[in-house]
Order: sequence, then C-alpha cells, then structure tokens
Amino acid sequence: MSVTIQLTPQAELSAGIPVALEKTRQPHYGRYLDELEPGQVFEHPRGFTFTTSNMLTFARTFMQANPLYLNAHYARAHGFNDLPGSPQMVFNVTLSLGVQNDSEKAIANLGYYQVQFLRPVYPGDTLRAFTKVLERKDRGPDKPGITRIRTVSVNQHDEVVLQYERKIMVSWRGTRPPTTPAPNVAVAFPGANRPLLQLPLNGKPLISSGLTGPNTYFEDFAPGDIIVHANGRTITEEHMALTYLVGNSHPLHFDRLFSTAQSGKMSGEPIVYGGLVFAWLEGLASRDVSENAVWELGFTEGYHTQPAFAGDTVGALSRILAVEDVAGADAYGLVSMQLIGVKNITAAAALEKYGADLFVKEDTKRDAGKDKIADKIFEIERRLLIKRRPR
Amino acid sequence: MSVTIQLTPQAELSAGIPVALEKTRQPHYGRYLDELEPGQVFEHPRGFTFTTSNMLTFARTFMQANPLYLNAHYARAHGFNDLPGSPQMVFNVTLSLGVQNDSEKAIANLGYYQVQFLRPVYPGDTLRAFTKVLERKDRGPDKPGITRIRTVSVNQHDEVVLQYERKIMVSWRGTRPPTTPAPNVAVAFPGANRPLLQLPLNGKPLISSGLTGPNTYFEDFAPGDIIVHANGRTITEEHMALTYLVGNSHPLHFDRLFSTAQSGKMSGEPIVYGGLVFAWLEGLASRDVSENAVWELGFTEGYHTQPAFAGDTVGALSRILAVEDVAGADAYGLVSMQLIGVKNITAAAALEKYGADLFVKEDTKRDAGKDKIADKIFEIERRLLIKRRPR
Amino acid sequence: MSVTIQLTPQAELSAGIPVALEKTRQPHYGRYLDELEPGQVFEHPRGFTFTTSNMLTFARTFMQANPLYLNAHYARAHGFNDLPGSPQMVFNVTLSLGVQNDSEKAIANLGYYQVQFLRPVYPGDTLRAFTKVLERKDRGPDKPGITRIRTVSVNQHDEVVLQYERKIMVSWRGTRPPTTPAPNVAVAFPGANRPLLQLPLNGKPLISSGLTGPNTYFEDFAPGDIIVHANGRTITEEHMALTYLVGNSHPLHFDRLFSTAQSGKMSGEPIVYGGLVFAWLEGLASRDVSENAVWELGFTEGYHTQPAFAGDTVGALSRILAVEDVAGADAYGLVSMQLIGVKNITAAAALEKYGADLFVKEDTKRDAGKDKIADKIFEIERRLLIKRRPR
Repeated sequence: MSVTIQLTPQAELSAGIPVALEKTRQPHYGRYLDELEPGQVFEHPRGFTFTTSNMLTFARTFMQANPLYLNAHYARAHGFNDLPGSPQMVFNVTLSLGVQNDSEKAIANLGYYQVQFLRPVYPGDTLRAFTKVLERKDRGPDKPGITRIRTVSVNQHDEVVLQYERKIMVSWRGTRPPTTPAPNVAVAFPGANRPLLQLPLNGKPLISSGLTGPNTYFEDFAPGDIIVHANGRTITEEHMALTYLVGNSHPLHFDRLFSTAQSGKMSGEPIVYGGLVFAWLEGLASRDVSENAVWELGFTEGYHTQPAFAGDTVGALSRILAVEDVAGADAYGLVSMQLIGVKNITAAAALEKYGADLFVKEDTKRDAGKDKIADKIFEIERRLLIKRRPR
Repeated sequence: MSVTIQLTPQAELSAGIPVALEKTRQPHYGRYLDELEPGQVFEHPRGFTFTTSNMLTFARTFMQANPLYLNAHYARAHGFNDLPGSPQMVFNVTLSLGVQNDSEKAIANLGYYQVQFLRPVYPGDTLRAFTKVLERKDRGPDKPGITRIRTVSVNQHDEVVLQYERKIMVSWRGTRPPTTPAPNVAVAFPGANRPLLQLPLNGKPLISSGLTGPNTYFEDFAPGDIIVHANGRTITEEHMALTYLVGNSHPLHFDRLFSTAQSGKMSGEPIVYGGLVFAWLEGLASRDVSENAVWELGFTEGYHTQPAFAGDTVGALSRILAVEDVAGADAYGLVSMQLIGVKNITAAAALEKYGADLFVKEDTKRDAGKDKIADKIFEIERRLLIKRRPR
Repeated sequence: MSVTIQLTPQAELSAGIPVALEKTRQPHYGRYLDELEPGQVFEHPRGFTFTTSNMLTFARTFMQANPLYLNAHYARAHGFNDLPGSPQMVFNVTLSLGVQNDSEKAIANLGYYQVQFLRPVYPGDTLRAFTKVLERKDRGPDKPGITRIRTVSVNQHDEVVLQYERKIMVSWRGTRPPTTPAPNVAVAFPGANRPLLQLPLNGKPLISSGLTGPNTYFEDFAPGDIIVHANGRTITEEHMALTYLVGNSHPLHFDRLFSTAQSGKMSGEPIVYGGLVFAWLEGLASRDVSENAVWELGFTEGYHTQPAFAGDTVGALSRILAVEDVAGADAYGLVSMQLIGVKNITAAAALEKYGADLFVKEDTKRDAGKDKIADKIFEIERRLLIKRRPR
C-alpha cells in the first residue's frame, strides 16, 4: 500500500492565525505517586534498536575491556550468533525506556534489585519495555511515598531479555498539573520468576586466548579478594548527550534550566544519569575482573550513594564474595563480587583512607554507628559467569 | 583490475628539499558574491553515506521522540522498507553538503523556504547535493548582496530526496584571494516544481500503539493550539564535532581562532551550526507534536533570529496553524504548525514573558512597532503527516 | 552447544563476608624497561571490530574531506569492495591496541617510523595487533631507556593490514609494583620487510568527478609547494572519550587524577592522545592535498613535538617533497609530503612568524643553532597515491 500526496508550495500561515493564549497546554511527563497504583502495568514509549555500531560505541565509551563486547569475531568464536550487547547497555537502555512512566517525576532512585539478564541482544534487535507497579508505600499526604516496581524488556520476538525491580521515591501530585496519560496496555505483563538462562556457549572457543590477560580466569578469584582498579575516568559534559543516546528523557540530566531550578541538593549542574555512572565503574573494573566473563547473570542491592557531575573523576574497586561451579558447564564458573565506586579520589587512596568501611552498605552505617563516606558514589553486588583457564 | 606497488622503506626527504616560501599557496573555500551567478549550478563535494547507526545516533542526539526514527521494527511495521533517516538529519546533511559552495563565505543565513522531503532515505543510501543560483540581489559595490538559491539532494539512484530554497547574504570578494574553483557540473540540475510524494505507508501498522502517547494523534490538534514543550537541552561543546559529523565544513562552528577573529556580533566563541539548533528544537517538540507523525512534508519561512553557543539551554513551543484531510489516505491527516525556539529561558517562562509576540515573525516586528525578542532564537512553519487515532 | 543455568533470586552476600584488607591486589598495566626484552613478542588484548558507521564517524570527527572515507558509493565506484577504513583510523586503532604492552608505562613517545598500510580494512573486519621488541637502548640504571619496537595489525584472516616501528622512552621498574603478565603468544610474529601492496583500483571510476575539487589531482602538486590549510579545529574535552573509542587505555588521556599527579610538564589536564592530534591535522589538510588520494602508502619520521590539551585549536600546513609515476598504473601517481601541525596560531600566521623553520625537524634544531618552535605540535612525512586528473 502507499499514500500519494501532490506537494504544492507551502503557504505561510502564521500571520493569519490569531494567537489565542487561552488555547495553551503544557504537557508534563512522568507519574506522581497518585498515578502509580499497585497492579498497574505501563508499556513504555519508543523502543530502542540495537546495532553493531551503537553496541561497540557504548562498550568503548564506558571503557569495556572484555573482547566479547568489542570484537565480533571473538564473540562468534565463543558461540554467540554475533556481537552481543553488553549487559551495561541493555540495562541502561531498559532503565531509560522506563523513565517516562517509572521515574521522570521521581525524587530519588532508591535501588536496583534482582536484575537478571535472560537472553543476548544482537545487532538489529529492538527492545521494548514494560513496568508493573508491585507495591506502593504511602507515608501520609505530606510525604513522598515509595513504589516498588518490576520492569522487563523484550525483544521483537517478545522474548524477555532483562528483568529487574527498583524502589523509587515519588511525591503526591498535589496541585501540580496532571501528566500525560499512559496508553492502554494490550498485552499481559511479561517476565518469569525462576527463569532458565540458555547461553549458546561452546566450551572451547576457536580463537587465541591472547586477547585477554592470563590472570582473570575463574581460578584467579577467591572470596575476600579485594581488587583496586588502577585507572579513573573523568566524566565530561558528554554525559548530557549520552543520557538520551541510551533513551533516557529525564531533564535533570541535560537541561541546566531544569537542574538549577531544583531545590536542595539536586539543585545545580545537570546530574550524571546513574546508569552511565554504573557503566563507567563497571568498565573501569572490567580489565581486572570481567575480561574473561561470558555472561553477567545479574546484580542486586545497587545504590547510587552520591550524585556525579561533569568534571568528576570516578574510580572503582571490586571485592570477591563467592565462587561456584556450574553444573554441566565445566569450562565456566560463577563469581559473585561487590563493585564500589568513588569519585575525585583514586580507588587506591580511598581504600587507604576508609579501609573496610568502603565495602559496608551506606544505608546500614547509621545503625552501625559509622559515618557515611562522601567520596563513595555507588555500591552493588554482581554475579558473573567467567571462563576457567584454558589448558 | 588492480594496482600493485612494491613497498620499500620510506626515505626521509624533507631535509633535502629546500624550503621555498614563494611556492606557498593558501586555498580558500566558499563563494563570494562575484562567484554566484544566477543560473550557475554547483555539484557539492564529498557526498554522505547514511547507516542505521548514524541515523539512530542523530535521532537520539537531537532528542527525537518519534519511534519511527528510533525503532527499526516500528518503521517496518508502518510500511517503510527499513528505518528512515529523520527529516532533520536529511536536512542537516543536505545543508552541510552545500556549505562549500553556498555559504562558507556567507555573512548571514537569511532563511529557509519551501523545504520539501520527497523520498525516504534508508541505511546504505548515499546523498549528493546540487545548488542552482536562482537570483542575486546586488546592493552596490560596498554592500553585501543577497542570493537566492535552490538546493537538492539526490540518492545513489539520482532520485531527489529533498529540495529547498535559501536566501543568503554574501560579500563581494574585493581584494581577498580567490576561492578554489568549482568542478564543472556534468548533469542537469535535478528537482521538480510540483513533486508527487509517494510513501510506502500501510494504514494499519502491525505493532502495538503503546509505543507512542495516546494524545498526539491527528485528532488532538486544532488550529490555534499552543503547546509549551516542558524540557530544554543544554548545548555543550559537542556542537563543534557534530558540525562536521553532518558534513558541515564552515570554520565558524569549530575553529575558535576563526570565530574570535570575526568582527561584530559574530566574534567570539564558535557559533552552533543552525541546523543543529533546529534539530534540537524539533526533537524537544517531538514528544508533544510529532511522535505519531509518519512524514514531514516540509517547512518554510525558517529564520535563526539569534545565534546559540555552547552552554546555552534551548527550549521550544509549537502553535497549530491548520489541520487538513488527505484525499485517499483516511488513516492520516496533515497538521501545519509553527515551531519557536528560545534560549536560556524556559519555554513556559518565555510564553509568560512575551505572550503572543513570541509567535510573530521577528523581521515583521519593526514595521508593527514591536520589539524583537532577544531570547528567541528560531521560528519556522512545518507541515506534517500524522496518524489518526487507531480504533 | 549451550549452557543452561536456572536463575534464582540473587542473595545479598557482602555483609556476610568479612573485609580482609590483606587480600588486596592492585593490578598495574604497561611494561617497564625491564619487561621489554629484545626479541620478545606481545599479542595485544581485545581486538577491534570495524563497522561502516564507526568508520564514517571517525572520518567525520577528524574532518576528512576525501569522499573515499565518507561515501561508500564513491569507494565502490573506485574498485574497493566497500567503504575502506581511513588510514588514520587503522593507525589510531593499531597504536591503541598496542598501548597496554607498548606504551602504557612510557615516559615519551619518541617517533613513528616506516608506517606502511598493506591492505584495506572493510566493515565487519576485526583487527588484532602484535608487537616485537626490536632493540633496547639502556642508558644506565638511573635513566630511562629507549626501546625500538615493531607493531603489526592483522585482520580476522591473519593478513597484515598495517605495520610500523616506534621508539619509546621507558623507565626501569625500580621499586614499583610489577605489571600484569602478558599471555604467551602462540603464533609467529607477522609482517613483511618488502611487502607487496595490491589495491583493487579501477582506473576509470564510474562516478561523477564533481565530488572532489578540480585542483587536487596528481598534476597539481610539485616538489617544494607549500600549502597553508585555511581552517583549524578546536579540540574539546571530547578527546577523553575518543581515546578509548579507538581502543587506547592510557589514563594520561582521560583520568584527571592520574594526569594531575604526574610530575614535570606532563602534569595537569589530560593530554590529547597523539593519534587523535595527527588525525585532526591530516583531516584539516585533506581538503587541499588528499581529497583525490586513493591510498596512503605510509609515513615516517613522525614526532609529536608538543602536547595538546582540550581547548587548543590546531592547524596544519603541507609541503610537497616528491612526485613519482607508478609503473603499470598510469591513472595514479605518488606524492610525498610533509605535514606540520601548529596550535593556538593559524597556519598562515605560523608561516608568517616562523617561515622556513616550520619545516625543519625539531630534533635537528639544536645542532643547527635554531630555536625550537613552541607553537608547533607535530611533523611527519607522508606518501600518498593520488589520482591523475580525469580526461
């Protein structure tokens, strides 16, 4: 089918249409607490198409060292159909797709929980995302409440590629104008409680092992190991463009008029979107802990404990929490680890200054009689599938 | 066929070749008024290959909200062969391809007129561009003149994808060195006066309508409606790289030595290339007025009324001018609208401050006894094909 | 084959694993002089996949004017299978792949020699790189030594695409912690001493010659010609991201905590990675000297004589050194030329200020009783295959 239109010279119209200010409307995006009912499901706008190039560019921008995300030949030699999108990109994009309904009116992002990567995303795939409101904790009419949500992203075959939960602090609407309505959702909320992960891995990749270091295999990690990642990354104003490059529409990250008009400690320069901060930290760590990983199973208990701004230099430390065999896959093992982010102090100096307290969750410190660490910006627990040393 | 060359060690030569300063040449680009004869045709250099990734990156950099330019699956479900290049990208690239002959010596870009998009640009397409000088208004030997030009871009099958007219203010060459000559043009100037637009649209896209909002369909717009777009975008120094990323070779946008050496109000920091400013404004507006558009027919009467610089935050307002049915295509309708850009003031504050005057063309204000608005940076009229609400 | 894992809720572990600071390790990258034994071969980590989009983006970021790297249709019309990666990108990527073993602990990059491009890199190709230590000049235990290395990059078919030599100044390790070990290299060091270059060129490209200027053909260059390139490029903080976008892991270029902690004249803001500086200079020159080139045979005697920083504006001059016929390929000729880079002064002003001395190698100036030029940042000799004027 096709539509045919005879184009004609475009007449100038504006001078002939009187300006009627009473016909003004001011659409607002996001959802206030009133608009987040437990059980409600949102289909998020737009979707996001992945390409080899934008996957490579993401991995390189965020300093990925695992060849799996940088080298398509290496990825295929390991059994993948093609270059897979890095977990960080899939996570960043899914988080961003959800912003309009989940967090564009949020006061604070309180944490990431039970993040699970279920399927590779390949070049040409298009993700869409859905959120279900699981719970809403009201704390009275004058205080913001806390919502717990579950978000999933699916590919164009409606297969779930990622699912996670978040807790978000949101205000009641009060006298503010209403937000744009959400479209009706025609589909059942996707997702699984005990998903089965199937990876196309072959145990003996037909490629030189010289593309990764010799001391980042499964056998090189033991519970308790602390790894101080040598390099930092100075974040520039690039972060403003990167925000919408991964699909995030929140003006706090790219609109200085908006950010400076905020009250309290959010007021000032645009804040770096947290997903980007996490991606840089994970990339800085990758040279030492994940260059031989073949899958990120997921992460949990993720908290942005301080905001980051253009000009900040971020650094990272990892701490190994557990190592496990994998039944039926003796070429690989599972490694659980903590990832800690700091800013404007090197990771080595932060460890010297704060010692063991760096690895204590910030929101448990008050009860433990400890001070929060102002230089610390992020903490999370990760779980990775890592190659054993080739023989 | 092939060429075979035996490579040998490359000998160092420079010390043996005496420096002869009299053999210096200083090529200059652009065309002075003397070099813009009515009837003359230029074929512009280089050409520009589109890819899925650079199309997606453009759409995201400029904050596009229409899934048609972000989601290849959505585009195909609407009848397109593949992801189409956004009109803003096709316009930016075509403008840029023409810079060397049209405006690299321009004093001022006076306006865009009768911009018409005639065919989708798909991944893998390569555009070339041509300009014909339509008219030259001389205003005496001491004053810059005004040229009216017509530019078209064609794909690799020589099909016109875009055509427009511009007015540009240009100086006589005077005693300045001549510019590089233009190559002879071997082809007839392409383009059509009353082009027929044929779009591969199907009326019932096989995709969830949840990817766009429920209140941006054809039925949601009525003449006179004013829509204040909520968010702004802070432009960073990214604009310098973006200029040549779309093919624009004008040093005013990326060479601080050049920009600071200019006289008058152009002197100072590099000025943001106007095509980029328009693209950001259009993107900021897209969430409210064009996320359900399937084609931009064109625009006219486009003026950059103030320059923008790195650090500026831009915002946008739209005003609906007309709505029309389309014969033989009852799933769509045409919406004409004004797009207004402001900087370093929110769109809402600008409307409150300036009221109806925001929508009055700046170059008519003197005659109407009105003041120009210093915060206003852009104005244009657009014409879009927009989906009716699905039933 | 595949690996199947039943995903279960991810338990929080960190609170249960006591922090044992004695289990800390601090991996360091790079090689000290002690670790660079003549004859030693390194296989560099990661590899790098090229795509049409990242090739186009590189060419445009660095202001390339040769349509061969911007226009896939033009490239194919000249006989190439597809868009070739620009020599600058292939060089930048290969240099970067080698950083971890070649120069991540370097004090100074002393020069590029005998750089030879042997084969086109096409979209989808993946490069890996190898370095052999050719020579190590020790200058006593208290002074850094100088290594001469040979680096090659190969595509996924193990065909050499680029080879070059570098001299690098490196310190002894002393009391510093050791660096991460290099993996064993299983393959013979690739490369050839007198390589045969075979290019798929057809003598009569089936495409309009209007895509390049009429005065940049082989016949337009004569030994001694000096060409002052009109435009400069202001380098922004973009350089920090670009560093790892081409695969370079050296923190001096993107980690402000690292760069400010350096001593002497390297201390301060992150220094622009030299490969990027060269790429901008070459791009600025391309409009005048290489828009009709079909191959860069190579370059030699390349020196970064001053560092560049964000905010600097760079400019370029070229001087023709030799022109040669090519046996059996009468549609082309070889042009050798010097490329000189300056910063924060226009190329024209630098020529006026320094005259012939601009073209004298900086490291020969002391012996010649001349002053070094503080505004000069780069010098190199290039050798290009350029089209003769079409008849």
